[in-house]
Amino acid sequence: MNLSCLRPVAERIFDETRALAFDGVGITRDSYGAGESAAASYLGKLAEAEGLAVRADRAGNLVFSLTETPSDAPVAWVGSHIDSVPRGGNYDGLAGVVAGLLCLLERKRRGSHGSLPIEVVAFRGEESAWFGKAYMGSGALLGKLSEADLLLTHRSTGESLADCMRRCGADVEAIRAQEVLVDTSRIRAYLELHIEQGPVMVARELPVAVVSAIRGNVRHNHVVCAGDAQHSGVVPRWLRRDAMFAVADLVMRLDDHWRSLLERGTDLVVTTGVVATDPAEHSISRIPGKVSFSLEARSKSSDTLEAFYQVIRAECNAIERQRGVQFEFDRRLLSEPATMDRELCAKLARACEATGAAHALLPSGAGHDASLFANAGIPSGMLFVRNANGSHNPHEAMEIGDFMLGVEALANTLERLD
Amino acid sequence: MNLSCLRPVAERIFDETRALAFDGVGITRDSYGAGESAAASYLGKLAEAEGLAVRADRAGNLVFSLTETPSDAPVAWVGSHIDSVPRGGNYDGLAGVVAGLLCLLERKRRGSHGSLPIEVVAFRGEESAWFGKAYMGSGALLGKLSEADLLLTHRSTGESLADCMRRCGADVEAIRAQEVLVDTSRIRAYLELHIEQGPVMVARELPVAVVSAIRGNVRHNHVVCAGDAQHSGVVPRWLRRDAMFAVADLVMRLDDHWRSLLERGTDLVVTTGVVATDPAEHSISRIPGKVSFSLEARSKSSDTLEAFYQVIRAECNAIERQRGVQFEFDRRLLSEPATMDRELCAKLARACEATGAAHALLPSGAGHDASLFANAGIPSGMLFVRNANGSHNPHEAMEIGDFMLGVEALANTLERLD
Repeated sequence: MNLSCLRPVAERIFDETRALAFDGVGITRDSYGAGESAAASYLGKLAEAEGLAVRADRAGNLVFSLTETPSDAPVAWVGSHIDSVPRGGNYDGLAGVVAGLLCLLERKRRGSHGSLPIEVVAFRGEESAWFGKAYMGSGALLGKLSEADLLLTHRSTGESLADCMRRCGADVEAIRAQEVLVDTSRIRAYLELHIEQGPVMVARELPVAVVSAIRGNVRHNHVVCAGDAQHSGVVPRWLRRDAMFAVADLVMRLDDHWRSLLERGTDLVVTTGVVATDPAEHSISRIPGKVSFSLEARSKSSDTLEAFYQVIRAECNAIERQRGVQFEFDRRLLSEPATMDRELCAKLARACEATGAAHALLPSGAGHDASLFANAGIPSGMLFVRNANGSHNPHEAMEIGDFMLGVEALANTLERLD
Repeated sequence: MNLSCLRPVAERIFDETRALAFDGVGITRDSYGAGESAAASYLGKLAEAEGLAVRADRAGNLVFSLTETPSDAPVAWVGSHIDSVPRGGNYDGLAGVVAGLLCLLERKRRGSHGSLPIEVVAFRGEESAWFGKAYMGSGALLGKLSEADLLLTHRSTGESLADCMRRCGADVEAIRAQEVLVDTSRIRAYLELHIEQGPVMVARELPVAVVSAIRGNVRHNHVVCAGDAQHSGVVPRWLRRDAMFAVADLVMRLDDHWRSLLERGTDLVVTTGVVATDPAEHSISRIPGKVSFSLEARSKSSDTLEAFYQVIRAECNAIERQRGVQFEFDRRLLSEPATMDRELCAKLARACEATGAAHALLPSGAGHDASLFANAGIPSGMLFVRNANGSHNPHEAMEIGDFMLGVEALANTLERLD
């Protein structure tokens, strides 16, 4: 299979989607917002111009296929997401959708429907940056969004997720009732190509890799540490209830535990991505009375996530006693770790081998829509494409040559499914 | 001297100024802004209605006197400030101006000019909350504002201090040239009444107190810790350059040093009043690449301030090496500690004694305009009035009875000056 003639198509799509979403610094395609919808509309028109069938599913995601597939026919799904974090990069998510479209175009040009039809799904709302919740598009489809999730609000507009999803054509009532909006029994395999978001493949000189497992995470979007706002000059240390010193104390305690656990071989990363004193009342000369922050731990092990979460809460209790503050936690969010299908991993590895590229089996530190399909019992597999400078920043840098190797491995794998 | 007939006047002024500046939560009188100017205008009209002379000085501050004093006549100054922090209280600053006005009204009703005429100065711009710089009104008058100070910008409007001062009638060109805008040789004494902003007088049941010394401070309004913004799931701990973990590390190192120094009897408080990840790019699933924060240390000792400042910079250097981040400091701001005049302290203590109230000699943890006059070589003294719940918050609670005891002690002291 030779896909090189599709390389200019890929380049054009990446150029045009970048131009659509460039915000002056990076790429912004807000979940269920203008940026994401512009990308959806662009991809829909492009697919139609190429003679592909395009429809929206009941969760507002876009589905591309060679022809209208009967709703009960077995299919292979190729999916990824089209939203981005604020000021992110162009390839995180979008690369997987473009890869799926190229597989469809290759079949179309070859005049083959393959032994198993392909549906390419462009998910909305994968990034947690906008509503504080990840996998909204794939979660809605699989009946995994709760009433509480639908009440989450957009980070800047304050609109509810339910309202934003409805505007994008989602059947919010069915989602709220947690209906499974797709017949999962017909999905024989879920495949996803994604850029690597860490530094490993660049360091190991691997253009492509097969993903073995996906880290899960436990999160609080909004924890408040409440102390006592006082004039900074007049309260001695022993009478202070400084919310910022308390949060710094928590972060350093977690850092100590993290280091100890790593030394024992535990898989774990810990992040406080959003931290702020209260802009309505903070000042240089005032002891902070309120600090809000996010907390996230990720691991390949559910047990580690649960154990570390208990450590977090225990340390908060200790700091409350020692520093006279109170921690108030919002709802705990949990994304389960996921294991990729062993047989699909083997097929993906053989397809990588066939391209002649160096490859390896790697775990994914980041979460992906694929984890929901794997945890819903659908055999799932992922391909990583090398990418420099990480993701969730404007500097991500996937080489188009590496991408086309990944597409070739993906297309080859799809030909071997039935 | 019986001032009880002036108590209703004080109550009315506090009620009316509170109504003018209530923001729904606390009191907001922004330096060189609408809130402060509304208070200035109110006090000016009130004084004129009472037959007092009112003028503005060349720095935009208000000066009240019984009659127009000849510009070379010896005077006693009674001053404090009329601005507040955002969502602060009504008494921090304003109480001292009202106390001075009551002393003038008492003389007027008694038909006495005293042996030394009084000028009451209502300073603008004492709070650092708005421009990141304290004592702007008194500093401008004494030639202590620099070109760089005048370029500081308002925390929310972004307007320069120079523009805001000019709009309030200040002679910005003279201030920029650091002219001393008042003949300091004629000021025989500078007296200031202020609420206590700490918890000591409530705990020790002291309605009034005489201030022995004023803590100075060393500050950075805006330090930036720059790391590397990356996807939170994919970068192992040893490859992270997490700006938030670095800042937490700094805060905890300073907390450790602070505790050690306190055990050795050093006078010190340390505060990081404003801390934030970058709202333009932070997210729950992103390692913070940038954290900005303020830093402040206060002490009665210049040597302690300098030594602790060197500790801060040394720890920042160590953290830069260990965590792969960089700290970028803005201009260092220094307010020198100040000692009150021994003879004035004795006179104030005798006047307190004469009221029959319990009193003591206490240091001031907070800075005051008085420190600039003391450091300019003008004999200066301060009275504290008891106040619950601290200041720089909406809950400050001075009793009017305590205030009137302070006014009585102030008026008595003024009668004994020549």
